[in-house]
Amino acid sequence: GFATAAQSNKVTIGLIPADGIGREVIPAARQVLESLPKSESSPRFEFIHLDAGFEHFQKHGVALPEETLTRLRGECQGALFGAVSSPSHKVAGYSSPIVALRKHLDLYANVRPVASVAGSGQKQLDMLIIRENTECLYIKQERIETDANGLKVAYADRKISEYASRRAGQMAFNMALMRDKLRSNVPASERLWQGKPKVTIVHKSNVLSITDGLWRETVRGVKENNAALYAGVDMDEQLVDSMVYRMFREPEAFDVVVAPNLYGDIISDGAAALVGSLGLVPSANVGDNFVVGEPVHGSAPDIAGQQKANPIAAIRSAGLLLEHMGYSGDAARIYQAVDGVLREGLIKTPDLGGKSTTQEVTDAVCKRL
Amino acid sequence: GFATAAQSNKVTIGLIPADGIGREVIPAARQVLESLPKSESSPRFEFIHLDAGFEHFQKHGVALPEETLTRLRGECQGALFGAVSSPSHKVAGYSSPIVALRKHLDLYANVRPVASVAGSGQKQLDMLIIRENTECLYIKQERIETDANGLKVAYADRKISEYASRRAGQMAFNMALMRDKLRSNVPASERLWQGKPKVTIVHKSNVLSITDGLWRETVRGVKENNAALYAGVDMDEQLVDSMVYRMFREPEAFDVVVAPNLYGDIISDGAAALVGSLGLVPSANVGDNFVVGEPVHGSAPDIAGQQKANPIAAIRSAGLLLEHMGYSGDAARIYQAVDGVLREGLIKTPDLGGKSTTQEVTDAVCKRL
Ligand SMILES: CC(C)[C@H](C(=O)O)[C@@H](O)C(=O)O
Ligand SMILES: CC(C)[C@H](C(=O)O)[C@@H](O)C(=O)O
Repeated sequence: GFATAAQSNKVTIGLIPADGIGREVIPAARQVLESLPKSESSPRFEFIHLDAGFEHFQKHGVALPEETLTRLRGECQGALFGAVSSPSHKVAGYSSPIVALRKHLDLYANVRPVASVAGSGQKQLDMLIIRENTECLYIKQERIETDANGLKVAYADRKISEYASRRAGQMAFNMALMRDKLRSNVPASERLWQGKPKVTIVHKSNVLSITDGLWRETVRGVKENNAALYAGVDMDEQLVDSMVYRMFREPEAFDVVVAPNLYGDIISDGAAALVGSLGLVPSANVGDNFVVGEPVHGSAPDIAGQQKANPIAAIRSAGLLLEHMGYSGDAARIYQAVDGVLREGLIKTPDLGGKSTTQEVTDAVCKRL
Repeated sequence: GFATAAQSNKVTIGLIPADGIGREVIPAARQVLESLPKSESSPRFEFIHLDAGFEHFQKHGVALPEETLTRLRGECQGALFGAVSSPSHKVAGYSSPIVALRKHLDLYANVRPVASVAGSGQKQLDMLIIRENTECLYIKQERIETDANGLKVAYADRKISEYASRRAGQMAFNMALMRDKLRSNVPASERLWQGKPKVTIVHKSNVLSITDGLWRETVRGVKENNAALYAGVDMDEQLVDSMVYRMFREPEAFDVVVAPNLYGDIISDGAAALVGSLGLVPSANVGDNFVVGEPVHGSAPDIAGQQKANPIAAIRSAGLLLEHMGYSGDAARIYQAVDGVLREGLIKTPDLGGKSTTQEVTDAVCKRL
């Protein structure tokens, strides 16, 4: 099992910066958590630094040390993960630590909110992507053979289970209800999404009739088998190729989007392009007992160590971490502070066309908490 | 083997409208082919109508009749395929006829040019997507089991072979050289792509180290093993998620893009969004002995039969068909006529914000041939 807090409000967070700009944005997120105003009900944070990543692999031969897993399980209530570099050539024995972490901690849903900031001049959208986070092609069951002509033939297994599809689907419908509830606090004129909450199921069952067929039927079944609970939630579907097309043409047409692992990976990068930068998009890897916040961006080796990285994705991921640990008030403070900085538009990193440093953006967010 | 033309310039084209708007846009493409000015060297067309599609399946129990395949092989030098509807529920025994056609005729590369029209106000781009067309998850090797708890678990095989990857890679590098040659006829100031030709390899080898590792190494090998031939072609790579992100942020950064089947499917819909409509984007399914032109859009049941479908994707696909059959002069005429209509911007279907009918757009193209 996972560690439960000894005192009610003590929260121990594992910090796993990993590679590249992960080492700049995770400290930024930590600073924001530490700057939250203290109240009776707010958490008291302790932080533990934990190793992982491709650079760690290069030095020590292991990308996700056993100690990191043990301490996460034994001492932490949640974690923040930075980013991991991808080897540019095949490296024997290396395997992505974030994929392993999701699997080992059974973090079955990757929750990725992508929203435009009002007045940003960008297309207006406010969608939440729920990415199934444990299977699909990410099970990494691969093999290679040699054919009769001496040529190589490789295979990978894509797994879709009723169990995992249902968990992801439930998360999607529950989040749709939750978002609807939160929206009711916002004046109607300021709401981007006006209709009933909606879940869009992404699949490619016109080709993958068995695997994506099972995915589609199972997620549909979540609504059909809980008709009363989810009566207020609409449901529709999109083939993954059409999804990418429609997302760019009418991103305002989506509320909650639920997708198998790889489609979710691709769609969320696409959605990030719509809001102006991957440096803005957070995620939470959510399980029943543990949450790992993780910016959607990568390790960006080209700008690492130069104070150019946008810390907002990591800061928002810290917000998601709090939200999914039950501290929604503190999470909302973080989101509002970030939105304030973005709306003002004065202090921004180069990815948004500005000249501010990682530290300057972080300080600006902290000032508004 | 495939039919060879009895007289040198006689070209027999199989027309397979299939479902929905396929029945409007294929006749449009035929009209354009028939309206090409006749010269000594230009082809004399004969057309054969052939059946396929989901509606055909519903009536006759087969989506791609044996007769269609036999006549394509025995009587045709090429074909035009319309679009196929996707069943909204699982339908026993149904399997996509276009996927089957690609496989049976060994049409190993799907060539998808996506270019903006100068002065359209859209982002400027001019890319060519080469999609591997025979394997990846499209081999449809799927199975379903029941686990110890009575829950379903489904698997699909993803196949990546050295053989197919090399053929797709060769097509990409050859097309990069070809495009470079064609560009040299365009005044430098009007060229969208200014640098050396470039091939971008799309993969996800940070997760799929064996299958996408083989894909990446094999496509790289095409250049490395033909160093002299491809010395003038640059090569880089993008993870599929980053590809979708970058394509939307800087589409001008891409020349030729080569991708495994499913990634190519997704990327080309994304690229279509950038040029304003799926109704503009053509493709050619290319094999060593046969070509099938096919608009990238679907069967659009919501607008079928209303003269609202944009015929341009199908008309451009007829151009691609001619180009890959060796009639590049006639192909160029079609492209120029289409570009003329688009640049003028007066006659356009509703997807482009106009009110013209399928027939009006077709007539406008024919007038400019
Ligand atoms: C680094 C990589 C393995 C990872 C993924 O594909 O899940 C990343 O792209 C992400 O989205 O978190
Ligand atoms: C209809 C479908 C099977 C097809 C595909 O996925 O290849 C279509 O999306 C396409 O792009 O031609």
